[in-house]
Amino acid sequence: MNVTGQPTRTIVAGRDTVEIIDQTALPHAFVTRPLRTVAEAAHAIATMQVRGAPLIGATAAYGIWLAMRQDASDAALEAAHAALLATRPTAVNLRWALDTVRDRLAPLALDARAAAARAAADAIAEEDVAINRAIGQHARGLIAAAFARRKEKVQVLTHCNAGWLATVDWGTALAGVYAAHDAGIPVHVWVDETRPRNQGAALTAWELGAHGVPHTVIVDNAGGHLMQRGQVDLALVGTDRTTAAGDVVNKIGTYLKALAARDCGVPFYVAAPSPSIDWTIDGADGARGIPIEERSPEEVTTIAGMTTMGTAAHVRVTPPGSAAHNPGFDVTPARLVTGIITERGVAPASREGLAALFPERAQAAAKMKAST
Amino acid sequence: MNVTGQPTRTIVAGRDTVEIIDQTALPHAFVTRPLRTVAEAAHAIATMQVRGAPLIGATAAYGIWLAMRQDASDAALEAAHAALLATRPTAVNLRWALDTVRDRLAPLALDARAAAARAAADAIAEEDVAINRAIGQHARGLIAAAFARRKEKVQVLTHCNAGWLATVDWGTALAGVYAAHDAGIPVHVWVDETRPRNQGAALTAWELGAHGVPHTVIVDNAGGHLMQRGQVDLALVGTDRTTAAGDVVNKIGTYLKALAARDCGVPFYVAAPSPSIDWTIDGADGARGIPIEERSPEEVTTIAGMTTMGTAAHVRVTPPGSAAHNPGFDVTPARLVTGIITERGVAPASREGLAALFPERAQAAAKMKAST
Repeated sequence: MNVTGQPTRTIVAGRDTVEIIDQTALPHAFVTRPLRTVAEAAHAIATMQVRGAPLIGATAAYGIWLAMRQDASDAALEAAHAALLATRPTAVNLRWALDTVRDRLAPLALDARAAAARAAADAIAEEDVAINRAIGQHARGLIAAAFARRKEKVQVLTHCNAGWLATVDWGTALAGVYAAHDAGIPVHVWVDETRPRNQGAALTAWELGAHGVPHTVIVDNAGGHLMQRGQVDLALVGTDRTTAAGDVVNKIGTYLKALAARDCGVPFYVAAPSPSIDWTIDGADGARGIPIEERSPEEVTTIAGMTTMGTAAHVRVTPPGSAAHNPGFDVTPARLVTGIITERGVAPASREGLAALFPERAQAAAKMKAST
Repeated sequence: MNVTGQPTRTIVAGRDTVEIIDQTALPHAFVTRPLRTVAEAAHAIATMQVRGAPLIGATAAYGIWLAMRQDASDAALEAAHAALLATRPTAVNLRWALDTVRDRLAPLALDARAAAARAAADAIAEEDVAINRAIGQHARGLIAAAFARRKEKVQVLTHCNAGWLATVDWGTALAGVYAAHDAGIPVHVWVDETRPRNQGAALTAWELGAHGVPHTVIVDNAGGHLMQRGQVDLALVGTDRTTAAGDVVNKIGTYLKALAARDCGVPFYVAAPSPSIDWTIDGADGARGIPIEERSPEEVTTIAGMTTMGTAAHVRVTPPGSAAHNPGFDVTPARLVTGIITERGVAPASREGLAALFPERAQAAAKMKAST
């Protein structure tokens, strides 16, 4: 999407390095950084310089490329895979991207691996863009339908950042917003600030502003009230992992917004690129078994921002003696989800709904299950 | 409750002034301030140096006293009433306290008004303490029952600050927590940080810590996840105004927690001193008519805290071009409330339930309605 009028991607591979946007500096500064080694790629993911399930996957794939340029041995391939996989436990795209690249390289001669890794990573990045563009077209249809009904600016509520900064381009939940906006459909986004890391206030607000999409930041507490008062036409969120049964793992607090949407009759859609669907988990209680990342208590007790002097600072908001607890994600049960927007269309949030759009994946998962 | 072992109240009247705790300095500093004039009292309420419906009521009553000491005329009485009433639109205690004092002074000779105002304000403050102590005894019963069932530390979740800092002493939602803790019942409190003003992180965490009650701060997004995973035994919140039909106006975000509690089978209780019950609103849609205070967007775009250098600072968390919207309260429908804890006991959240505990108030309201 655009930054000061220039089409921009979150990750761009050059001849020797990969350039990323350091998202920890946003919204106060737009800073790009080169990644030169697999260690730098792992560091960028672990410290959330890059974040968002699809972008994590692409960055990890390029991380394997950076590793192979230095040492293309089997041991180096396994070490790179392990180091990158250990960075974030919840996103399923990470393992998918790493396994994809490793499986492609394993049978190759050592001197062919770096080039093959680069080609595989490029393909993952391009596939992400294509998937998100397709999701955007389907979601644009939902926004256009809401506009046709209301004849007024369509009010979308989103949580966290599932915009282009979370992907290579377009975004998942916001792809439809960009597609609608670019097509001249009037749309306004309520942006949950998304504590503790404030990805909504820092990233979603920044990228919508950079592209010129009208938006307003609200605290995470406010969305239910807006829905009660009829000020939200549809909720659109992303996902870190969606089970084959349609249960949605996403940023902590998503579940609360889905409950409010159900209570107020607001459609609640989840944009899920197929690589974020975990076909191995399809039981009704399957989502309970997904590990929920526990992040640092400091993310709760301190908040990062910009002082009136224009310098970046962390401020502590709790008393020194108070403990904090920081689960990173929650699970929104399929029963609260109106539909799952994939690159192949909008599916009901159910095993049957998802399997109808992706029969080959559902069948492959069933076969694998039967054979174990 | 205790501060470094000393029993402490939020507001103490002296011979010429009223001393308050400046709650905007918490949790980083414990600062008291004298109020000398009605203008200072109004300023303290408007800037939330004092906040919490019961404490606002008591402070406003003392504000009338401060006004009468300078000028006891009818005009001064009306001006003080108007200035104090204009400070905060949502809390019903404010009007109740102001009307109570004004009605007592109106028939009196001018030279008797200051002393009468002081006596009325003292009575309001003492009544608040007595009411909250009684609420605490009823809520302690609920916590004791949960402990008897679980035989483990009782896990309470609370939102915003409905502790002793919101009242003259004891608090409303936290009165039962203090009563249980002081009686040796093991209890732990999950403290919602409560954006945008962080009253949970700043005030609830501070006062629980000061009194020695175990607690953990969480972001507002996390409560639903904890309830899903069985980590909350009961939710206890306060209220700024509860209608005669049991609909609960409270800090923005309360509705979301009530939805999660209902979805997860967690009892959701509201501590409502009778002065916070608005007997004039009893229709099913009555709560929709209650004005919801719109507060400054800066409360969303910036966050107050303490830098690592030990100085108080505000940091901006949003991009400069992004607007923000800041509704201060939401309405939790009675259907989501397990019970309303009053000084006379625990009532079902319904017109019949509340009227059974307060028949004289319900009848007076019905009479007034019939006569208009």
